[in-house]
Amino acid sequence: MERRTVLTGIGVLLFAGGLAGGAAMARAGEEEPRRATPREAVPVYDGAGQLLRPEGWEEWVVVGTSMGLSYSEGDEAGSRGPDDPPGLFHSVLVPAWARDAYRAAGTFPDRTMLALAIYDVETDAPPRERGFYQGELLALELHVKDIGRFEGGWGFFNFGAEGERAEVLPGEASCYRCHAEHAEKDDVFTQFYPLLRGRGSDAAGP
Amino acid sequence: MERRTVLTGIGVLLFAGGLAGGAAMARAGEEEPRRATPREAVPVYDGAGQLLRPEGWEEWVVVGTSMGLSYSEGDEAGSRGPDDPPGLFHSVLVPAWARDAYRAAGTFPDRTMLALAIYDVETDAPPRERGFYQGELLALELHVKDIGRFEGGWGFFNFGAEGERAEVLPGEASCYRCHAEHAEKDDVFTQFYPLLRGRGSDAAGP
Repeated sequence: MERRTVLTGIGVLLFAGGLAGGAAMARAGEEEPRRATPREAVPVYDGAGQLLRPEGWEEWVVVGTSMGLSYSEGDEAGSRGPDDPPGLFHSVLVPAWARDAYRAAGTFPDRTMLALAIYDVETDAPPRERGFYQGELLALELHVKDIGRFEGGWGFFNFGAEGERAEVLPGEASCYRCHAEHAEKDDVFTQFYPLLRGRGSDAAGP
Repeated sequence: MERRTVLTGIGVLLFAGGLAGGAAMARAGEEEPRRATPREAVPVYDGAGQLLRPEGWEEWVVVGTSMGLSYSEGDEAGSRGPDDPPGLFHSVLVPAWARDAYRAAGTFPDRTMLALAIYDVETDAPPRERGFYQGELLALELHVKDIGRFEGGWGFFNFGAEGERAEVLPGEASCYRCHAEHAEKDDVFTQFYPLLRGRGSDAAGP
């Protein structure tokens, strides 16, 4: 119920979903811009250029979840016992408007935000006997396409568990190079996400 | 873009999100009912009482994902190698209106649908070195609260990977008893889902 404007009057309503830049859409005859719904979300920055933690990100579309996924060999772990998890849960989310546009075009539209939500692992609650479920949120990271703002088009941000704003990570951060080298499409690891993998238009190419 | 009605005219718009029964809401002056958005989804049955596979369920809120979660001891598996997954991925989703109502009341409103999406496990795509990511959807199961329709208030359905309609599972199916005995709140295993766990009003009790 929070985060949604209830509209009861008579007026022209512009549906911003599917349009980049939807955050600033307003009802005709009103000065206050309508708040973007989670489906329409686009990045919002403060005066110092820091990204604000997006409201309603938990309602974005989860395009895939992984467990213990790592791109480095690390120490060659041996075998694990039945209660030893392979690592943390990583869920990747995107606002529905950007997911729809990606499917149509094969690239992400300007002002796309992808969220990486990292969750702890739990095993304690009954009747669990085997396997692993998500504990609390440990960190929220964002990957934002903003062509006029970031060199290379994309910026990474780390909000931690509860941070309300974050500065863009510097270009030396390892995420930039790894995404540029290994992401399947448009700087995004679509190869790992069942709701994106093979869903972008081939015409637009990787 | 599919599944959303674009409204450009002048008229009274009723926002059905947050109202149970939103599927049948219509714009004033029109006979065709507006299609429910994923945020508003409620169960729809055919003439024979079978549940139709909900459109847009992938846009519901993912309240938690688990891996290999099992409520039976089974064969006490020994240790697993680094490339042996603990089991399949299970994601649980709910329409945003029902999630909001649960948080307010501590029980799920009538016509709540919870989806259990079972995904295969993959390890092949580079640059993965360790851990597991989701393969394709193997099965979609639904848990539906419909007080006037199901004994005990809830019914279970299994659509498989691609089924378009499903009959309610009979009362002898093991899911009914296990949920009744072990679910933390209102027949739902909220103890396993970070977006529901501890989020329902305590006043309403389990």
